[in-house]
Amino acid sequence: MTTNSDRRRPGRPPGGSDTRDRILASARELFARNGIDNTSIRAIASDAGVDSALVHHYFGTKSRLFAAAIHIPIDPMSIIGPIREVPVDQIGRALPSLLLPLYDSEVGKGFIATLRSVISGSDVADLSMVRSFLQDVISVEIGHRVDDPPGSGAVRVQFVASQLLGIVMARYILELEPFKSLPVTQIIDTVAPNLQHYLTGELPGFSAD
Amino acid sequence: MTTNSDRRRPGRPPGGSDTRDRILASARELFARNGIDNTSIRAIASDAGVDSALVHHYFGTKSRLFAAAIHIPIDPMSIIGPIREVPVDQIGRALPSLLLPLYDSEVGKGFIATLRSVISGSDVADLSMVRSFLQDVISVEIGHRVDDPPGSGAVRVQFVASQLLGIVMARYILELEPFKSLPVTQIIDTVAPNLQHYLTGELPGFSAD
Repeated sequence: MTTNSDRRRPGRPPGGSDTRDRILASARELFARNGIDNTSIRAIASDAGVDSALVHHYFGTKSRLFAAAIHIPIDPMSIIGPIREVPVDQIGRALPSLLLPLYDSEVGKGFIATLRSVISGSDVADLSMVRSFLQDVISVEIGHRVDDPPGSGAVRVQFVASQLLGIVMARYILELEPFKSLPVTQIIDTVAPNLQHYLTGELPGFSAD
Repeated sequence: MTTNSDRRRPGRPPGGSDTRDRILASARELFARNGIDNTSIRAIASDAGVDSALVHHYFGTKSRLFAAAIHIPIDPMSIIGPIREVPVDQIGRALPSLLLPLYDSEVGKGFIATLRSVISGSDVADLSMVRSFLQDVISVEIGHRVDDPPGSGAVRVQFVASQLLGIVMARYILELEPFKSLPVTQIIDTVAPNLQHYLTGELPGFSAD
């Protein structure tokens, strides 16, 4: 991304927008290459040639740095945090209840633009980051709560992810009618039982013994 | 697409590959602009400046012409035809049983490439054709069989489509693990009850009275 000689140009104040961009470029590269879980703020700071404190100063948490790196205008923790408080038997409803109004909002436009670029394959770093987010963060974060029988948690969550991604496709990308015009509450009511089935119902291929 | 002067160049045999390309260009334009249902072989022939018999000679049915226009190497009727014979209470299993092995095959690569280009927004004609196929052909073809209460059929089918599209996203585009490596039969067994629920279960927003 940047060479060492770029990184410490003399006479530049450490807090310029140049520094912020350099941190973002390092974050994108490391998140995409090593995954979100395996990338620390310290490693990003080191790659960008700045102090960790400066990364925190600009971006706050790693979660918010990830959002900036992948161009989504919302901290993923604002979804993950509330889900932690939801009883397991209600996550199937809580997830679309949090996500669908977001998709429909201004915030959602940025999210859908990112997803489009990811899917088109035009940006490999975006694709790797979304994959790592779903695979390493969400599948683990929610998966450990629905890991019954043991080992099934990540699979359960990924079936849920497939349905939620499909809604984005049908509603915002293909814009199928009447699907596109259905009230958000109707979509939530319709998918919630199926999502809950993926999370806590019988899961073929996993024995309960 | 082509001007009239292009269309009837003197000295060209009517059956050259130039003619075939011209028919395809007209098909893409009319399918995308007016939808599949509202576009006849005759209208395509007329736009391309050829006889309808020549369109049939090159492409056979309208369904096969559509497949060629959207660059998928399989006649959609090879899916739709068998589904017509399946009892309504088994369509939730029959659909993924037909589609998933196809996605996993060589044929699927072409389908997924088309879907990628559609989603990226790089080809507006492709997007319009996929939309028309799902909205005007599939939602009607399968929808009339699950239209209970009346008016719910297209919505039911589009929820099914959203889940099937989401599987393509998770498995072939994002390539989430472990989802990508699950046996096809396990995915079929897991989604079939949920698809069937969309097709014949309670559907919020539609009263059964």
